[in-house]
Amino acid sequence: MSAAFPAGASERPGRILAAEVAEQPDVLRRVLTDGAGPIRRTAEAIAARHPRFALLTARGTSDHAALYGKYLLEIRHGLPCGLASMSTVTVYGARPRLTDVLVIGVSQWGGSPDLVSTVWAARNAGAITLALTNDPDSALAGVAEFHIDVRAGQERALPATKSYIASLLSLYLLSEGLRGGDGAAALALPDIAERILARRDEVRALANRYRFAERMVVVSRGYGYPTAREAALKLMETCYLPALPYSGADLLHGPLAMIDHLTPVIAVVPEGRARDALRPVLVRIRGRGADLAVVGPEAEVNRAAAGFVLPTEGIPEDLQPVLEILPLHVLAYELALIRGQDPDVPRTMAKTPQTR
Amino acid sequence: MSAAFPAGASERPGRILAAEVAEQPDVLRRVLTDGAGPIRRTAEAIAARHPRFALLTARGTSDHAALYGKYLLEIRHGLPCGLASMSTVTVYGARPRLTDVLVIGVSQWGGSPDLVSTVWAARNAGAITLALTNDPDSALAGVAEFHIDVRAGQERALPATKSYIASLLSLYLLSEGLRGGDGAAALALPDIAERILARRDEVRALANRYRFAERMVVVSRGYGYPTAREAALKLMETCYLPALPYSGADLLHGPLAMIDHLTPVIAVVPEGRARDALRPVLVRIRGRGADLAVVGPEAEVNRAAAGFVLPTEGIPEDLQPVLEILPLHVLAYELALIRGQDPDVPRTMAKTPQTR
Repeated sequence: MSAAFPAGASERPGRILAAEVAEQPDVLRRVLTDGAGPIRRTAEAIAARHPRFALLTARGTSDHAALYGKYLLEIRHGLPCGLASMSTVTVYGARPRLTDVLVIGVSQWGGSPDLVSTVWAARNAGAITLALTNDPDSALAGVAEFHIDVRAGQERALPATKSYIASLLSLYLLSEGLRGGDGAAALALPDIAERILARRDEVRALANRYRFAERMVVVSRGYGYPTAREAALKLMETCYLPALPYSGADLLHGPLAMIDHLTPVIAVVPEGRARDALRPVLVRIRGRGADLAVVGPEAEVNRAAAGFVLPTEGIPEDLQPVLEILPLHVLAYELALIRGQDPDVPRTMAKTPQTR
Repeated sequence: MSAAFPAGASERPGRILAAEVAEQPDVLRRVLTDGAGPIRRTAEAIAARHPRFALLTARGTSDHAALYGKYLLEIRHGLPCGLASMSTVTVYGARPRLTDVLVIGVSQWGGSPDLVSTVWAARNAGAITLALTNDPDSALAGVAEFHIDVRAGQERALPATKSYIASLLSLYLLSEGLRGGDGAAALALPDIAERILARRDEVRALANRYRFAERMVVVSRGYGYPTAREAALKLMETCYLPALPYSGADLLHGPLAMIDHLTPVIAVVPEGRARDALRPVLVRIRGRGADLAVVGPEAEVNRAAAGFVLPTEGIPEDLQPVLEILPLHVLAYELALIRGQDPDVPRTMAKTPQTR
């Protein structure tokens, strides 16, 4: 556990979240040691069924893990994918034909009725069903044919952090297993994560910048896009800041108009192909006079007004999302405290939202 | 053309958009008379190929038309669907296996390089490809095997309005054609649209409410969700208002925390199953002290602080999105003028954004 976070050291607001953020390197280690074997065997069993199409279904933070899974399956496996619109099943009673379709339900607690009934309906419609949850005894794990336990341990703060990165890494190992890979590229993640979380002071300085912000835009592209969406959700949940996430290309199709000198923009810039695709977008954002901060390579941070240099140390682009979100978890935590909120228990939030 | 809009009557800001908004009933009539036959024949040719999955690909306003198409294909046809993440192909070079997959590219101008190359790659990978555009001579129409001309006529204002409803109605007629329906339910749309657009004064009163708003949330569910997304985009483009669209279920998984007394919320409430699904969400939003306006049935408008009673007159829920967006088009226009902007030419916008 990183010494940078005084985990459980006081009764002050945010202590639970701080502890769980600090625990993340250990969570990654656990997934790599205890999780890798079962995930590989699950992947082999699924590969033997030769899915032709994948549908991922999730809400909130887990929806961003699902989006990461969509990129993995499309890019690394050539598997056409969709994110399920659950209301088609739960509100309108759609009964899609799902032979050869892999349906993956992602949920930290695994109990939301809409998710459970969507996966159950999919299984009855002939789909290959997989639940990815942090609770092997959950209803979702029970209805799916296959289950992956993301092993994040009990999560007590309402905003999900460690279960998110555990879900990302589990999806990566699933992808590796589907193609017979060994997941070796992931072994360096825990140590890099520890070094990132030790730089809490840098993130606190960045958080001070946003003390009075009334809105925010978070932008990325490709593999970094799930990170942008998850960072925006965390900032909304903990800091009550309206944060709009965009893929760089979508931003240019209209929403750029809303960006001005009063709009802070955080760009998540992966080291790899997404970086090239984002470059013209960053030029347009700077041209709007926006306050641009970059989480990414040093050269891109230096071109921006502020940022956080993300060490990737040879980690491939498709695994960098596990690292990218870490400084943004800390940012949400620090900014919530600066703005006088308790990030452990945001108003209105429930750990187990039951939607239909 | 509705007399409520002084189309082209002066050189004042917004006159082009006003004319195009007013033209929408006539556009619907044209799709029903000139478009219906060709769309039915295209649908029959596609049905004969027995697609097993559908991928829809689009950006900006067209992405919301594509989302509507996803609901139609999933609910009415049991066809599993996804919205394509174009970067997987254009940035990462993914080559998905697309036999039996229907790939639908939606674009008003049909020229964005990412969209053209995604549909072209899909065709080469064995997909059944369909372009839905407002320009039969566009590059997108050229690369796809099938093409539907949405017949909205030239659109000169930068924010797309009439091409959006023309795309929605064309997708509905495609769905009808795929299942041998005659599309008769749509015949009443133009007259109802005319009556909605004649109530401009009511919308202007609603717009005055948001003169000083610094953010907005637009919420709906199911068939109404594409409307929420499109309304939010229009408000961002024309009024520079950060507007966050949510499905009601997703709103409860975190973002609700951000809603407070300073947050105006517009709820799009379809008459039908989505209305029941939205009811508990509206209770939660009112409980947060938000300023809630409803576009929907009279009883729901009466329970809210403001709103616009949407006449549906027996139009089925799956066709109501063609009507729901109309008062929201007018709202974006009126609010832009109130806030001193010219909605014809929002800053930074291009009619033909070229993204890769």
